[in-house]
Amino acid sequence: MGMADIAEVLWNDFLVHNPADPKWFNRDRFVVSNGHGSMLLYSLLHLAGYPLSIDDLKNFRQLKSKTPGHPEQFVTAGVETTTGPLGQGLANAVGMAIAESVLAWQFNRDGFPVVDHHTYVFVGDGCLMEGISHEACSLAGTLGLGKLVVLYDDNNISIDGEVHDWFADDTPGRFEAYGWQVVRNVDGHNPHEIKLALETARASKDKPTLICCKTIIGWGSPNKAGKESSHGAPLGADEITKTREQLAWPHAPFEIPQDIRDGWNALDKGAAAQRGWQALFDRYAADYPKEAAELARRIDGKLPENWNDIVAKLHTSFAAVDKPVATRKASQNALNLLAPELPEFLGGSADLTESNLTKWEGALTSKPDRVHGNYLSYGVREFGMAAAMNGIALHGGLIPFGGTFLVFSDYSRNAVRMAALMKIGVIHVFTHDSIGLGEDGPTHQPVEHVSSLRLIPHLETWRPADAFETAIAWQAAIERRDGPTALALSRQNLPIQPHPAGQAAQILRGGYVVHEAAGEASAIIIATGSEVGISVDAAKKLADQGVAVRVVSMPCAERFLKQDAAYRASVLPKSKKRLAVEAGVTHYWRAFVGDDGDVLGVDTFGESAPAAALFEHFGLTPDNIVKRVLALVG
Amino acid sequence: MGMADIAEVLWNDFLVHNPADPKWFNRDRFVVSNGHGSMLLYSLLHLAGYPLSIDDLKNFRQLKSKTPGHPEQFVTAGVETTTGPLGQGLANAVGMAIAESVLAWQFNRDGFPVVDHHTYVFVGDGCLMEGISHEACSLAGTLGLGKLVVLYDDNNISIDGEVHDWFADDTPGRFEAYGWQVVRNVDGHNPHEIKLALETARASKDKPTLICCKTIIGWGSPNKAGKESSHGAPLGADEITKTREQLAWPHAPFEIPQDIRDGWNALDKGAAAQRGWQALFDRYAADYPKEAAELARRIDGKLPENWNDIVAKLHTSFAAVDKPVATRKASQNALNLLAPELPEFLGGSADLTESNLTKWEGALTSKPDRVHGNYLSYGVREFGMAAAMNGIALHGGLIPFGGTFLVFSDYSRNAVRMAALMKIGVIHVFTHDSIGLGEDGPTHQPVEHVSSLRLIPHLETWRPADAFETAIAWQAAIERRDGPTALALSRQNLPIQPHPAGQAAQILRGGYVVHEAAGEASAIIIATGSEVGISVDAAKKLADQGVAVRVVSMPCAERFLKQDAAYRASVLPKSKKRLAVEAGVTHYWRAFVGDDGDVLGVDTFGESAPAAALFEHFGLTPDNIVKRVLALVG
Repeated sequence: MGMADIAEVLWNDFLVHNPADPKWFNRDRFVVSNGHGSMLLYSLLHLAGYPLSIDDLKNFRQLKSKTPGHPEQFVTAGVETTTGPLGQGLANAVGMAIAESVLAWQFNRDGFPVVDHHTYVFVGDGCLMEGISHEACSLAGTLGLGKLVVLYDDNNISIDGEVHDWFADDTPGRFEAYGWQVVRNVDGHNPHEIKLALETARASKDKPTLICCKTIIGWGSPNKAGKESSHGAPLGADEITKTREQLAWPHAPFEIPQDIRDGWNALDKGAAAQRGWQALFDRYAADYPKEAAELARRIDGKLPENWNDIVAKLHTSFAAVDKPVATRKASQNALNLLAPELPEFLGGSADLTESNLTKWEGALTSKPDRVHGNYLSYGVREFGMAAAMNGIALHGGLIPFGGTFLVFSDYSRNAVRMAALMKIGVIHVFTHDSIGLGEDGPTHQPVEHVSSLRLIPHLETWRPADAFETAIAWQAAIERRDGPTALALSRQNLPIQPHPAGQAAQILRGGYVVHEAAGEASAIIIATGSEVGISVDAAKKLADQGVAVRVVSMPCAERFLKQDAAYRASVLPKSKKRLAVEAGVTHYWRAFVGDDGDVLGVDTFGESAPAAALFEHFGLTPDNIVKRVLALVG
Repeated sequence: MGMADIAEVLWNDFLVHNPADPKWFNRDRFVVSNGHGSMLLYSLLHLAGYPLSIDDLKNFRQLKSKTPGHPEQFVTAGVETTTGPLGQGLANAVGMAIAESVLAWQFNRDGFPVVDHHTYVFVGDGCLMEGISHEACSLAGTLGLGKLVVLYDDNNISIDGEVHDWFADDTPGRFEAYGWQVVRNVDGHNPHEIKLALETARASKDKPTLICCKTIIGWGSPNKAGKESSHGAPLGADEITKTREQLAWPHAPFEIPQDIRDGWNALDKGAAAQRGWQALFDRYAADYPKEAAELARRIDGKLPENWNDIVAKLHTSFAAVDKPVATRKASQNALNLLAPELPEFLGGSADLTESNLTKWEGALTSKPDRVHGNYLSYGVREFGMAAAMNGIALHGGLIPFGGTFLVFSDYSRNAVRMAALMKIGVIHVFTHDSIGLGEDGPTHQPVEHVSSLRLIPHLETWRPADAFETAIAWQAAIERRDGPTALALSRQNLPIQPHPAGQAAQILRGGYVVHEAAGEASAIIIATGSEVGISVDAAKKLADQGVAVRVVSMPCAERFLKQDAAYRASVLPKSKKRLAVEAGVTHYWRAFVGDDGDVLGVDTFGESAPAAALFEHFGLTPDNIVKRVLALVG
C-alpha cells in the first residue's frame, strides 16, 4: 500500500506499454524489485487491462494460479522478471537498461529511435542493503544509463522493524557517489511531487536517477501504518474495516467502480503507442531494410538463418585442431569464429577478461557515455554481472555471456539459479575450473562447484575435455535459448582427442564413448574435462597390460541423464565395472558407477602449488587410475 | 609494492602485536583483504620476526610451503584470515571489530581495558567493487566500529586495466554516506602523510575510518609502475634489474641488510606490549576473578566446564517434547535453554529474526554506539553476515551464529565455504528449508540447497526431523569448534518421533534407525527432516499391508558417511532395497540407495501454494511412498 500512489502516477502518466501486447519490444520495462509487493503489481496489471482477472487476484498464492506469492516472469503476462531474492530485480533492471542502450546504439539511426524506452524499478530498503545493489548501481552509474529510473520506497521499515539500528546509510549520498542523479525527499503520497520527480528523471540523459520517496507502509491503515507488522502479514479483518473507513472506500472487496476502471485502463493508450512505434519501424524498414530485418530477427530471438552453416564451419574448424590447448583458449577461438556471425552477442567479464579469454577479435568494449559496444567490463562484480545478464536476456535482442573464475560462481549462484528458474538463455563462462589452476591455491580452486552447479534444476553445466568439445559446448549453449548454460573451462592446456566425423551429435547428448576398448571392455572409465586425457592415457597403459577399458567423456552429465535409456545403456552398460574420474568432489559420480564402482576425485580443498604437482599430489595420474581400475576388475 | 610504504608506517609505528606469540589475544588484527598481495604480508611477517624464514619466502606458491599463493590463516602464523575471494577479508575484519566491541562491552571494567585493540585492513579497488564491501561497510558504519581502520590502495588499476571505465565511484563520498570518517588523498608513498592519517583514524571513537591512499602499482619499477601488467604477473628479470637501480637497492635477492632487519624486528616491542597487557590482566584477575576466569576460558575457546550437564539437560528437556513443532521453533527453544549457559553466543539474523527464530529470551540486541549486545540485527546482508561471522570466529572469544532463509545460503555460499576451508566453528541457521514454506513460491523454496551444501568439503549440514533431532544438531554444531555447521530447519510443524534413551549418540553419528520394522525388513526408507514423519507414516501403512519396512533418519549425511563401515552397514545393509525421500533434488541420494534403489524428491523448482497442497502436488505423501516401496520390493 505504501507505493500505490507512486505506482498510480507512474502507470497513468508515464509508463509506455500496451496491455494487449505485453511483449511489445519497445515498451517501458517496469520491475518490482521488492517482489513481496507482488499484489501491487498484480493490481496494476489488472487495472491496466492485462489478461489478469479479478478471479486471478482472488487466487493469490494458490497452486498454478496466475498470481503466485512472488511475481513470476514465466507465469504472468506483464511481469518483466521474477523477483523476490532481494536486490536482483534492481540488477535485472540495470541489465535491461544496458540492453536498451546497446540495441539503440546498434540499430537507431537519425530520426529513427526504434529502440527507445525507459526502465523503471521499485526498490525497498532490503534491496538497497543487499550487496548486489552496490554492484549493479555502481555499474549503472559508471555506464551512465540515463534511461534507468529507480523509485526508492523509503518507509524506514524492514521485517525486523525500524531500520535505523541496522541501516543508517545516507542513501542519496551513496547514489550520488555512484554518479547518479538523485531526487530527494519526495512525498510518496503526493502525486504532484511524484510527477515532478519523474519528469526530472526523464530529463536526464547520461545519469540514472534515484527518486527517494518517503512513504508510510500500510498507508491508510489507522493502526498499522508505519509499522513492520504490515510488512508481510495481512492487516486482519478488523483493521481492514477501519482502513476502509479511513480511506472512505465503500466498495466490497475486489469490486472496482467503473470510473476508476476507466481511468486506469491503458489498452487504448497502449495500442496507440504501439501503433506509433510500428509506423516508425515501418518507415525505418523502408530506409534501412537490412537493419530492420536484423532487428526483427533479434526481437524474435531467432538464431541467424544460416546457423547450420555456422555450426558446420565450427565443427570443421575445431576438428582440425591438433595441438593441446586450454579449453578457455579454445573457448576464445570459438568466440572468434562465432561472434562475427552473432551480432546479438553481448560478452563481458567480471574484471578477468585476460584470464577468462571472453573477448574476441573485433569485440567493442563499452565506454561510459560514448560507446555502447558488444563487450562489457563488468568490474569485480560477479553477482551483479550475472543478474544484469538475466535482465539483458529478459529484455531480448541480445545473447549475454560473462566470465569469472569458476570458484566465484558461488558469488553469483542465486542469479544463475534465477536464470534457470526463468528459463532464459544466459551463458556463464567459468574458467580456472579445478586444482589445475595451480598456485593460487584453495581459495581459487573449485572442488565442489561443478557438481553443485549440476544440482541446480534446468541449468546445464559443461566441462569439455578438449578444443572440439569446447566448440560443441558453445554450440549447445547458444542453441539453448530456453535455459542457462555454464561452461567450466581449464586454465591449463588439454590434449586433443580424436573425434570421428559425426561425433558432434553424440557429444551433444552429454556423454559418449571417446575411447573404445580394443575388444570387449572389462571396465569403463567415466571422466570430464582435464581428466579425460589422463583417463585415455590410463586406458592405453591398461591395454598394454591386456586390460581392455572404454573411456566415456561426460561433458554435460545433466544432458546425458536426460537421454533415453537405450542410449545411456549403450554408453554405460551396467554390466561393466565403472570408475569415474573428476578433479572435484566424488559424491556426484556415485550415481554413475553403481554399488560396485569407484570414484577418483578431490574431496578436500586444494593446495597452492604448480598444477602438475597438484595432479600428482591428488593422485589424478594415469598410473593411479590404472591402479584403481585394476582394483575394480581385480 | 604499491602498499609497501603504508605497511612500513603501520607496522613500525602503530601495529601492536607480538611475533613470538601470534595468537596473543589483545593484538591488533591486520588483514590483507586483497589477498593476491600475499607476498607483502609474508615479507612483513618475516621482517617483524614471525616464524617465517627466507627459505619459506623462496618457497612461495610451492606445495605444502608456508607461503601459499594466497594467505592461509591455517598455514602461516600471523595470518589472521584466509583471503583471496575479494571483499571477504574486509568483511572478516568488520567481524573482528564487532567481536572486539562485544567482548570489550562484556569484559572491560573501569580502568581495565583488557579487550582493547584495533583492526587494520588493506583493501584494493576489487574489494570495493564487490557487493559484500557494501554490506560489511554499511553495517560497520551503522554499528559505529571506531576501532576499524581500512587503508584503501587507490592505484586506479585492476586486472582489466585502468578502472575508470568500470569503476567510477566517488569512494570517499560513498563511505561518508555509510557514516565513516574518511581521510582523503593521502600520498601512499609519503610516510608522514600516512602517519597523520593513522593518527586521525585512531582518534575516532565511534566511526570506522577509511584512509584513501593514492599509490602507484609496481612502485619503483621504471617501466611497469602504474600499469595493470604488474598486477598479478612478475616484473621479469630485466625490469627487476632496472627497478633495483631506480631504488638504489644493491643487495642480492632475499638478502636483507642487518640494519634494516633491526629496524623492522618487532620481537622486543611485541614482548613488552604483551607483558604490559598481561600485567593489566593480572590486576583485573585480582579485582574481577570471575570475569577473568571467564575471559580466559573464552580466549581458550573451551566450552563451559559443565557442558556435559548442559547437554544432559538439553536431552532431557527435548525428549519430553510431545507436540508437533517446527524445527525452527525447536531451534529457538534449544537456544532458550543453551544461551544462558553460553555467554559466548553472538546470535543474529539477516533481517529475518522473527522468521528464523534466532533470538532467545534475554538476548540483548546491539544498538549503534550504545549497546554491544549478544544479538546482532545484521540487516538484509546475508553474505556480509556470513563473512563477518567468520571474522568473529577467527577473532575468538565468541561463537557466532546467524540466520537467513535456506534459499539465500546461495548469497552467502562462498563465506560458508571459507569457514569450512579455515576450519572455524561458525553456525548457520537456515530456515524455511523446502517447498514446505508454501506460498512464497519457487524463489524462496530451496530445492538443490541442502544437497549442494553437503558437497562443500568439511561443512556439516543438518536437516533434523523433529524437536529432539534439532537439539542434537545444535549440540553437534556447538561441540564442533573446528568446522562450520549449517542447520536446515522447517517453517512448518513436524511430528515428534519416539527417541529411546541413548539414541542421542546414534543421532550424533548422522544417521540411525528411527523406526524399526516389525520383523525382518524387506526395504528401507531413508529420509531427512520433514520427510521422516511422512516416511514413518508410510512404513506404518506398509506394515498394515504386511510389508515390513525400516525407516532411517539421516539428519547429517556427511557425518554418516564418515562412520565406520560396520555402523553404516548396520543401519543401511546393502542387501535391502532402499528408497530415499527428501523434498529436494534426488541426485545426492543415488549413492545411498544403490543401483536397484529409488529416490523420491523434487527435481524441478517449487510452486507458490499452501504447503499441504505442495506436498500433495510433488507426491511427498505416505501413499505415494507406499506405492514407490511396493514397486521396489515388487
